[in-house]
Amino acid sequence: MEDITRGGQFLIKETKCENVFTPEDFSEEQIMMRDSVKEFVDKEIWPNKDRFEHKDYAFTEAMMRKAGEMGFLSVAVPENYGGMGMGFVDTCLVCDYISGATGSFSTAFGAHTGIGTMPITLYGTEEQKQKYVPKLASGEWFGAYCLTEPGAGSDANSGKTKAVLSEDGTHYKITGQKMWISNAGFCSLFIVFARIEDDKNITGFIVENDPSNGISMNEEEHKLGIRASSTRQVFFNETKVPVENMLAGRGEGFKIAMNALNVGRIKLAAACLDAQRRVTSNAINYANERIQFNTPISSFGAIRYKLAEMATSAYAGESATYRAAKDIENRIKIREAEGATHQEAELKGVEEFAIECSILKVAVSEDIQNCADEGIQIYGGMGFSEDTPMESAWRDARIARIYEGTNEINRMLSVGMLIKKAMKGHVDLLGPAMKVQEELMGIPSFDTPDYSELFSEEKEMVSKLKKAFLMVAGAAVQKYGMDLDSHQQLLTAAADMLIEIYMAESAILRTEKLAKKVGEDQAKEQIAMSKLYLYKAVDIVSLRGKESIISFAEGDEQRMMLMGLRRFTKYTNMPNIVGLRETIASKLIAANSYCF
Amino acid sequence: MEDITRGGQFLIKETKCENVFTPEDFSEEQIMMRDSVKEFVDKEIWPNKDRFEHKDYAFTEAMMRKAGEMGFLSVAVPENYGGMGMGFVDTCLVCDYISGATGSFSTAFGAHTGIGTMPITLYGTEEQKQKYVPKLASGEWFGAYCLTEPGAGSDANSGKTKAVLSEDGTHYKITGQKMWISNAGFCSLFIVFARIEDDKNITGFIVENDPSNGISMNEEEHKLGIRASSTRQVFFNETKVPVENMLAGRGEGFKIAMNALNVGRIKLAAACLDAQRRVTSNAINYANERIQFNTPISSFGAIRYKLAEMATSAYAGESATYRAAKDIENRIKIREAEGATHQEAELKGVEEFAIECSILKVAVSEDIQNCADEGIQIYGGMGFSEDTPMESAWRDARIARIYEGTNEINRMLSVGMLIKKAMKGHVDLLGPAMKVQEELMGIPSFDTPDYSELFSEEKEMVSKLKKAFLMVAGAAVQKYGMDLDSHQQLLTAAADMLIEIYMAESAILRTEKLAKKVGEDQAKEQIAMSKLYLYKAVDIVSLRGKESIISFAEGDEQRMMLMGLRRFTKYTNMPNIVGLRETIASKLIAANSYCF
Repeated sequence: MEDITRGGQFLIKETKCENVFTPEDFSEEQIMMRDSVKEFVDKEIWPNKDRFEHKDYAFTEAMMRKAGEMGFLSVAVPENYGGMGMGFVDTCLVCDYISGATGSFSTAFGAHTGIGTMPITLYGTEEQKQKYVPKLASGEWFGAYCLTEPGAGSDANSGKTKAVLSEDGTHYKITGQKMWISNAGFCSLFIVFARIEDDKNITGFIVENDPSNGISMNEEEHKLGIRASSTRQVFFNETKVPVENMLAGRGEGFKIAMNALNVGRIKLAAACLDAQRRVTSNAINYANERIQFNTPISSFGAIRYKLAEMATSAYAGESATYRAAKDIENRIKIREAEGATHQEAELKGVEEFAIECSILKVAVSEDIQNCADEGIQIYGGMGFSEDTPMESAWRDARIARIYEGTNEINRMLSVGMLIKKAMKGHVDLLGPAMKVQEELMGIPSFDTPDYSELFSEEKEMVSKLKKAFLMVAGAAVQKYGMDLDSHQQLLTAAADMLIEIYMAESAILRTEKLAKKVGEDQAKEQIAMSKLYLYKAVDIVSLRGKESIISFAEGDEQRMMLMGLRRFTKYTNMPNIVGLRETIASKLIAANSYCF
Repeated sequence: MEDITRGGQFLIKETKCENVFTPEDFSEEQIMMRDSVKEFVDKEIWPNKDRFEHKDYAFTEAMMRKAGEMGFLSVAVPENYGGMGMGFVDTCLVCDYISGATGSFSTAFGAHTGIGTMPITLYGTEEQKQKYVPKLASGEWFGAYCLTEPGAGSDANSGKTKAVLSEDGTHYKITGQKMWISNAGFCSLFIVFARIEDDKNITGFIVENDPSNGISMNEEEHKLGIRASSTRQVFFNETKVPVENMLAGRGEGFKIAMNALNVGRIKLAAACLDAQRRVTSNAINYANERIQFNTPISSFGAIRYKLAEMATSAYAGESATYRAAKDIENRIKIREAEGATHQEAELKGVEEFAIECSILKVAVSEDIQNCADEGIQIYGGMGFSEDTPMESAWRDARIARIYEGTNEINRMLSVGMLIKKAMKGHVDLLGPAMKVQEELMGIPSFDTPDYSELFSEEKEMVSKLKKAFLMVAGAAVQKYGMDLDSHQQLLTAAADMLIEIYMAESAILRTEKLAKKVGEDQAKEQIAMSKLYLYKAVDIVSLRGKESIISFAEGDEQRMMLMGLRRFTKYTNMPNIVGLRETIASKLIAANSYCF
């Protein structure tokens, strides 16, 4: 158990499908929770989509209160602070199914339950938790997170907001300008990061929203998407904050901020999933209804192609998100069993899987973007109209690639954290990387392997893709050492390899587990999706690997690595992906919705 | 001359750089025209961008009138109908530079000068031209094009609008509903397509806008982008149109519509170019100004990567668009020299290059989309704000992939038309395809070629990519014959190969011509862009070729074709594309704008 739940280890250990949690494993309670969230979204949010698109911020707030009444805001909050104390999978489940209808509400929900509440549950003192968390859990109060400043975006620790201790030592006076503050317009509480004196790192504070205490705001920002998410600049002018409202210790703010983002990242991935399902289902509906050339356009290969790809990326996204969520939940339980408080355990559990959180954030945010993009294309001219749901899905999706750390930052982080973990000895990359080098020196086997069992070739492909990554990343570390950080093109390419490996493996393991339960015939389309996803992952690993290799290796070394890359990306039996897409599309079109 | 100006022949003949027109070949008059358009956009449009984003339709109309006063609406109109009678390159040049500031104005301009005016200049009788064209050329009147209906989008010939001849035979009564009509709100004239009796094909009419003649409209559509482009549904209710206002003959409407779209496609490509340059320049400016981690973000590899890619696709887009524009212009001149009227010559000239028009429409519309997308990402959170120019560029770009035939339709058309041309004997695909098959049977040469001359390897790569396309397309035609049309996944993959070949070759030829003039050192960055573009084109040809092959070939045939594909996509000397991007980015960052 211990082994398979360490972060980053997916790369060097074979994961068995029995050890992977999948959406097919939801408990009855989880299914009930899912259905109740779905019902809320279907009844309250979706029919009022127009109000969100017309910037009805008050409606967003009203729906947040309703979500509070339904208990949805308290899922992740421990029971002794008024919450439901449910597990990490449940938390992701709620983020997932609340996201279907509009990015505006999903953002408000995520900002409040995640970065607006979590810093207190994770880092707060007992007094802070008792005082604030129950109000946040019930939706009596809403939280907002004030990290970004005009001059401090990706470089979050460079903020200029100051916290000055009063002469009597009872409070800090906070002065500074924060921007892109989600929920600012209706929140009761801010998590504010500010610098004390010339500290290297910023410090976190809990600040109650009180305009008479030097807090003011700009008007609502006008944004590309998530139109009814209240987003404002917030100004603090000598805002008095009692010393007991400091979060964790002085200079601990950067750590809080980063850990809050880790949690935020996987939840953000979850919060793209139902959006993707809905976009896919809407596209299928439209393609089935729209007649051109005397036939529904769902009969055309060009449309079926898109539907199959949309569903496949949603399926892979679900697979990887719930796999990681459960791994985190397990890790939290292990830590608790070892005697850690729930607070410590949760913190460490998520931190352990920070690599996977970054991977998921990048992969799923790009999947929903592509999915909505294809959705528009399927709707044709109607896709460009505000009267159909595609254009808002496309606009709303765009922010997910920017916030919680841009996808560029998260790509680099994913590889960077992995290498740091290796250096600390938490993941043994060196051993496997050396083995790959030895294998490359040896003569490849020309035996024809037996691939009769389901996914036997696919699982071998995944393990070869891991070798390809280890070969490239290992050589890059050897070449550049600690200076690798400055080779961002290379890091980005390596990240793409890493991401595809995790996503493809997750889809395959999920399907393998399913097929063992229901039989291969009943899992035919899931098998097709897993094979299709892998095929494309192999291409990406091949392209990005090649680009990396030729950027730092020359002559014989380059030739040898390129040969290795070819060997590690070579199928024995090429799948006919055109046929796979047909299998998937047929099922979707018959079901007239996303149905996995 | 004849040989090199036939459409589709780029695929089977080697084109010499001397025979390719490039933006470096603009005449003094063309440069003056370009500068005057730029000045108009910089002074009148760009500073008022906000008015367009706030749906100020009246302002769009006012700017169109101003463009008329400046003569910009009359560039393509023959002199005897009040126009400037300039060549096809000039026409594209104006579309190009008018597009920089906002898609709203660019769309209004394109809809009027293109599909709103061209059907009359191309198909009108002398009387129709004398009566309407001078008014349209001056901007006294504006034109709109009514083809699409609720049930007739991509299937344009299926429209339900009816034209019924009056009993006295003097006029038709037109009844029907048209949608997505650009410029509807302020136009004086419609080109309307309607069906007479149960004709197989629709018929075109010139209809003056007169609300008392049964013409009514819905309110403005609310759209994802091009917000100030007036777009309405138009209803005709027994609208009387004199018989002399029929365009060309009865049942000729579908041909008119398709040919108008051919012209429209290359102009639309041109109309994405300056948008792309401006987005790139804005991104460079921001990256140079924005400080994070104590340095301008333009110093980070992840940002430089994006800037290099943005500029490279703009450069390739310019290269291919002006190459095709001049080929069309030459073809028109040849036809005129052969005794055709200008009208006939222009029609046939553009029709000849319909394949290239579709290629350009797809490639450039996707390039501007990607470019704006990366622009948002470079701006980070600011990119999501309506206060910066990226989000509107991204929204506006989205329509270019839908109108003038969706990119899906254009992809399939490009390959479909090529095959039809081959079958008619206008392009000899069969001979070269057979040669490729013979070559595959033979033993490849293991000589080390001499690649010391500029682009010698790259030009050989382009010729190999053409072989790859001929191999795949040839085999697909053999396999499916006329049924190939129904294999849309395959057609789409083949189209991607075709597109990349044309774009990459165009960039290389342009740069080769430039380097001959200014020396390789002065063309260093252009050389880097051409190599970078080609490298990625090779990857796309490789991936899409592989996908095609495994969809229709099995066993030995599959193995042999995959081997051929590998041979045709193999570099002798791999370019270091990370280094190429660095070269390009350094120049852009130093110039603080797109500078090619």
